[in-house]
Amino acid sequence: MPQPIYLDYNATTPVDPAVVAAMMPYFTDHFGNPHSDHALGSVARTAVEAAREQVAGLIGAGPGEIVFTSCASESINLAVKGVALARGRGHIITSGIEHPATLQACRYLERQYGFALTVLPADGRGRIDPEAVRRALRPDTILISLLHAQNETGVIQPVAEVGRIAREAGVLFHVDAAQSCGKIPVDVAEIGCDLLTVAGHKLYAPKGVGALYVRRGVALHPLIHGADYEEGRRAGTENVPYLVALGRACEIAQLKLATGESRRLAELRDRLESRLTAALPVRVTGEGAPRLPNTLHLRFAGLAGNDLLAAAPEVAASTGSACHAGVSEPSAVLLAMGLDAGDALGAVRLSVGRFTTPEEVDAAAGVLIAAARRLASGA
Amino acid sequence: MPQPIYLDYNATTPVDPAVVAAMMPYFTDHFGNPHSDHALGSVARTAVEAAREQVAGLIGAGPGEIVFTSCASESINLAVKGVALARGRGHIITSGIEHPATLQACRYLERQYGFALTVLPADGRGRIDPEAVRRALRPDTILISLLHAQNETGVIQPVAEVGRIAREAGVLFHVDAAQSCGKIPVDVAEIGCDLLTVAGHKLYAPKGVGALYVRRGVALHPLIHGADYEEGRRAGTENVPYLVALGRACEIAQLKLATGESRRLAELRDRLESRLTAALPVRVTGEGAPRLPNTLHLRFAGLAGNDLLAAAPEVAASTGSACHAGVSEPSAVLLAMGLDAGDALGAVRLSVGRFTTPEEVDAAAGVLIAAARRLASGA
Repeated sequence: MPQPIYLDYNATTPVDPAVVAAMMPYFTDHFGNPHSDHALGSVARTAVEAAREQVAGLIGAGPGEIVFTSCASESINLAVKGVALARGRGHIITSGIEHPATLQACRYLERQYGFALTVLPADGRGRIDPEAVRRALRPDTILISLLHAQNETGVIQPVAEVGRIAREAGVLFHVDAAQSCGKIPVDVAEIGCDLLTVAGHKLYAPKGVGALYVRRGVALHPLIHGADYEEGRRAGTENVPYLVALGRACEIAQLKLATGESRRLAELRDRLESRLTAALPVRVTGEGAPRLPNTLHLRFAGLAGNDLLAAAPEVAASTGSACHAGVSEPSAVLLAMGLDAGDALGAVRLSVGRFTTPEEVDAAAGVLIAAARRLASGA
Repeated sequence: MPQPIYLDYNATTPVDPAVVAAMMPYFTDHFGNPHSDHALGSVARTAVEAAREQVAGLIGAGPGEIVFTSCASESINLAVKGVALARGRGHIITSGIEHPATLQACRYLERQYGFALTVLPADGRGRIDPEAVRRALRPDTILISLLHAQNETGVIQPVAEVGRIAREAGVLFHVDAAQSCGKIPVDVAEIGCDLLTVAGHKLYAPKGVGALYVRRGVALHPLIHGADYEEGRRAGTENVPYLVALGRACEIAQLKLATGESRRLAELRDRLESRLTAALPVRVTGEGAPRLPNTLHLRFAGLAGNDLLAAAPEVAASTGSACHAGVSEPSAVLLAMGLDAGDALGAVRLSVGRFTTPEEVDAAAGVLIAAARRLASGA
């Protein structure tokens, strides 16, 4: 079978060939340990610091505020547990539509160390209400952790409003921008957050690299203790090739955002959306709410999302987040929006990306429409 | 300047070109998320499980006993903190010649959670005495964590004897084999350990990947919470290219060990050792103790190691572990062996590897001898 049409960019992206080219010399030529004193070490060290500036540049941070990690899940764990354990105790606010890394880290803090936890729901369009965040504040609240854009629905959250509420209350604010970075502008000053998670493999860098923005002055306990790297915030010899890759990927993303990539993605997504909604009985999740330009989340009436995708193997897409693929339970994210289980089981997420073409969108729409009609007719 | 002669394989290795070739297709072609249900996901999933078997094969483990991590420091933290936090409290035995990841993880458990800690010294040859481990056991001892081969001195520790003592006492035993894997045979059953750390970038896989062997039935708290990957022991989308790389690197290491690579390394090291000891007033650390075949740790009388290396930039080597390069303090490892600070400051570590040739060894010896003589004569 030829490669399927890839409409699952929210699950993971291919690595951009320019990113591959940037990192390649660091495997076999410039392979030194950045902490070595000799010439090979210094080449590696210089490359790591250049990458740190590139990552910082994408999100409006200072290079010293970037901690490199092995993935967004590590960044989230470092942010949430790092802050909580440095504070010792208190109350944390998050939401039911977060990535499992956030929810599981928070629940671990609750179970293991007695932190108090408030998990806010989203509304039917998939948005968290900033006023609900304000109402959840307590005198002992130490941290608010919310995602910027929801990975399944693509709905963009009012993080700048929450940022203002957090600042007024003197509470730290972590934003999980794993899914938004590179798709829409992300600026830590505009959001007004203290910590922000970046994921490599959602922005055309490899799986296995991420970053955490930590505003100057925010105290964290490290997750990974050891040698005094990343200003004592993360031990482990730096993954030089992937840091170079993440830096280059951020640089490319910044350039693409400045030259209309969001609009190009939105046009592709809208084209897909209009073809499918014209032909099939579907509802668009988050309709009317701000959404990532690349994401189309649909709910089919009377049709299970996984049956549809199984009937259309020419298209690579998912029923929800890849974290839960293979599980035929309704998405916890959709349930947290108040949807019922039947509605949630009809979900399909289609996400376009840098290498998607209009022709692919048209072909995928044709395949999905035909498959849905076959299933509806019982053929 | 041309590339220096690389005699710092204990700090990090270049990636083997065969390992690079194995991982390349997973960046841009087989780039799927292993948790996706579609064809691209299944290719990635299959690759990850094949890599798990290759890693398990090198150390005599079952594939289900391998947890992939982002580096040896993460593996060590997962082993030490994972076991300790799952048990809740108790006493831990380790040594003063461990990697900082072990020592700092243990000290964090002591400081933050009140675990009791015994840090054993090594003898003048750099060996930990198994009987000292036995004497340190307490009724509440929950974990012994020792390294297999010391990264600075290369001295191989009596881990199988400690394994027997741990089993008799019903205490879990973690072995940090970051530096030994691929250089000497490492077998979890022969050692009799419950947990064992593997580092990618010491065995010709990239920096940024590692593994932890966790014997079936050993309970751990994860460091990185989130999606239920690695049997709930490590969240985060798998770094598919690097897992493929680590698998292939382990497979190559196993083959090399079976075909005399240890002996070839020892011949190169011995050649270097005999030239330097014949020409210069140096002492060989760990002389008479079993040592890694590739490692030569020297102490120069009346000469600082970093001065010597600065005077010989044609050779890339180090005064100790890369974790502390750039620091002109005496190595904590040498102090834990009872050496005095002056002696420790004369240390130079030379480590050969897969791509070292006899010609490089001869040239490096010539450069180092000339530099030492220049420095001694005050020229």
